[in-house]
Amino acid sequence: MTDLPSRIAITEEGPREGFQIEPGPIPTQRKVELINALSHTGVSSMQVCSFVNPKLVPGWADASDVLNLIDTVDGVKYTALWFNNKGIQRALEYAGKLHLTGCIHLCASEAFSLNNLNRDRETNIRAMHTQTADHQQAGIAVIKISVMAAFGCNYSADVPVADVLRAVEDGFEIASAHDAVITEIALADTMGWATPTRIQSVTGAVRERWPDIPLRLHLHDTRGLGISNAWSAMQLGVDRFDTTVGGLGGCPFARQPGASGNIATEELVLLAHEEGMDTGIDLDAMLDCAELAESIVGHPLPGALLRGGSLNRYRQKAKTTSGVA
Amino acid sequence: MTDLPSRIAITEEGPREGFQIEPGPIPTQRKVELINALSHTGVSSMQVCSFVNPKLVPGWADASDVLNLIDTVDGVKYTALWFNNKGIQRALEYAGKLHLTGCIHLCASEAFSLNNLNRDRETNIRAMHTQTADHQQAGIAVIKISVMAAFGCNYSADVPVADVLRAVEDGFEIASAHDAVITEIALADTMGWATPTRIQSVTGAVRERWPDIPLRLHLHDTRGLGISNAWSAMQLGVDRFDTTVGGLGGCPFARQPGASGNIATEELVLLAHEEGMDTGIDLDAMLDCAELAESIVGHPLPGALLRGGSLNRYRQKAKTTSGVA
Repeated sequence: MTDLPSRIAITEEGPREGFQIEPGPIPTQRKVELINALSHTGVSSMQVCSFVNPKLVPGWADASDVLNLIDTVDGVKYTALWFNNKGIQRALEYAGKLHLTGCIHLCASEAFSLNNLNRDRETNIRAMHTQTADHQQAGIAVIKISVMAAFGCNYSADVPVADVLRAVEDGFEIASAHDAVITEIALADTMGWATPTRIQSVTGAVRERWPDIPLRLHLHDTRGLGISNAWSAMQLGVDRFDTTVGGLGGCPFARQPGASGNIATEELVLLAHEEGMDTGIDLDAMLDCAELAESIVGHPLPGALLRGGSLNRYRQKAKTTSGVA
Repeated sequence: MTDLPSRIAITEEGPREGFQIEPGPIPTQRKVELINALSHTGVSSMQVCSFVNPKLVPGWADASDVLNLIDTVDGVKYTALWFNNKGIQRALEYAGKLHLTGCIHLCASEAFSLNNLNRDRETNIRAMHTQTADHQQAGIAVIKISVMAAFGCNYSADVPVADVLRAVEDGFEIASAHDAVITEIALADTMGWATPTRIQSVTGAVRERWPDIPLRLHLHDTRGLGISNAWSAMQLGVDRFDTTVGGLGGCPFARQPGASGNIATEELVLLAHEEGMDTGIDLDAMLDCAELAESIVGHPLPGALLRGGSLNRYRQKAKTTSGVA
């Protein structure tokens, strides 16, 4: 456990992931309310919306309105997600508010790519060349390689480590062809297949091959092992995680109706703080945001801590009543 | 990770924990239905009911009826819970069906003992002397020491390791006074305060002191860290766990309305199997039981795997469609 990082960097993706999948409609003002509240938790990075086709993702038809209305806070990086040049152009309109960087998206499972993107490996590589060129042309640096289905896949089942390495290699080849300098590799457990040991074998192999590029994990809690997977990664020194407040998000993939979404921000923060790692986040403020998120979506969120309650609040109560009991 | 056990022994406590806390009323026949289904999952030990005051725990007013109606299966140990001599006498009536052993219950936090049992440490020790004598007189061997609030407490907050050791010592002194031979020490994270490192420090200290007595963990997933705590314990070689199917149970303790209950059986089984440990349990059969449990209680249970779906079923589908895709 000597490799535990001293600080964990969390990217809050609750707004983007959550409002994308909720049947809604959720009023724009309530989305803004959650983003503004999250801005004051101490979180340093937050993905706030998607610039996608409103016919396909009606939950983000109001992305521009949300961006116009939020109050940005110094020290917080606001980011957005997009998948094509139209998205890039929309994002550019918010260059003053958004931290704009580009990402090369790949799949470790070709079956997942075919089923969800309708692209085989070669077609996706071509698409990523085009998208990387579009980014560079727009003046947006492409700095990240992200590999979906890096730990398993509902279509092809177990994903060999070699296929993850190949996807990352594809990413570096694409980047290299466009003189893009990659500064982060993200591995996504898109459908919740990871286990603690699989986390260690996959992240270990990627790190052995690219020892100088920091790793990020995007974990889903589809099968209840999400936090143990994060813990396993922390023990290898991984210190960048995507999470969603309250566990917002669900899973949009075929064959998994109703499944849990990302790991809950507040639970990762609890784990980090109790294990002596800093996050910069005020856990009680984040728990308040989880309650707010639950009231906005109008149904229980999967996070357990949301109901279990802050240890620090119990510690405070114990202190104030210890003379009396 | 070399200390990972090759086999994990799981005690299913879903029926007892779940039906005790559900507002209900749940028809006796449906309780029997779940117990009978669980009997065919390969689980080797199951706590099926409580012999407690029906005015205090109306959910178990029908304990005798349930026991009369269940079909016991060879190879499954059926157990029950009780807290006084009246309970012992009721359990004795089912000596043919139940595996009867006695337990010495202690609290690592005196504040918890005072608030939930209305007993300070000395009063509880006296009560346990009486109860141990009652068991021995009834011909029921007292073989277990169980320590509640072993990892933290909603009333006194953090619980020092020394207080856990003192509680176990109290247990051995009581056992010794009655010539009871203890063969198991159970540590309960009654209110969900454990973290992976706290699990290792507490179980490590207990094992260092009593190296020959096997440890059992009774973990609650109150704050989302339950499975990571189990994983942390397995890495120290702990191989006995109490769980509840679907995460049945909730938390009956003050200050935690609506909190999650025990760790979900199917999630611990998934973790064990994926990490190469045997449990004797058919995971898909256990998942079917979690669905049944959810339909019986009539509201969503906290288990994530219940909605995420069996990896093995996806593996099977991937195999049968791989020629086509």
